[in-house]
Amino acid sequence: MSQFANTPEPPYYAVIFTSIKSHEDNGYEKMSKEILEILKNQEGFLGFEFAREEIGITVSYWKDLDSIKKWKNNPLHKQAQKLGKNLWYERYKIRIAKVEKEYEFIK
Amino acid sequence: MSQFANTPEPPYYAVIFTSIKSHEDNGYEKMSKEILEILKNQEGFLGFEFAREEIGITVSYWKDLDSIKKWKNNPLHKQAQKLGKNLWYERYKIRIAKVEKEYEFIK
Repeated sequence: MSQFANTPEPPYYAVIFTSIKSHEDNGYEKMSKEILEILKNQEGFLGFEFAREEIGITVSYWKDLDSIKKWKNNPLHKQAQKLGKNLWYERYKIRIAKVEKEYEFIK
Repeated sequence: MSQFANTPEPPYYAVIFTSIKSHEDNGYEKMSKEILEILKNQEGFLGFEFAREEIGITVSYWKDLDSIKKWKNNPLHKQAQKLGKNLWYERYKIRIAKVEKEYEFIK
């Protein structure tokens, strides 16, 4: 389940994670839930957005590069990164980007 | 159908378009195809990635801010923006971000 992230006024950072999953679950769903729980309390985490069809796109939003670096080195996240390469993903791409502007439309 | 965008070495720009669609099609599919065709030949366009579940996420990649501005003012795109507000979207958010780094993993 994913909705819009309520990000603050720019500038802030986005991590765009594009992935193609392997067909087997191999503990992915369980780990995703655990990761989400600790992510919520991570320093500098601003929110995330997610959707998957042929490819999965997860965009997480962060206060600054330092917060992204700390999250990269979080022990459970490091374990998930290892399992991701070994079991869950055929391919992925990570882009780190500085959000400069945002616009919103609500009907 | 969407796969990974083969973007060049950073820096370049990402436009993150997060949306919630209305239930009716109202010409959306037809316009999407037309827009994609002209988008491919747009100056400075580098590729795009798309997935939709509860929300839709389209990330398009661009050479620079000037290319994004030109695309924003393209006549067919302007028409689509208007129809988007009137017919297709309940809500959307656009974030313009400068990609500083990228990493790729391929099994």
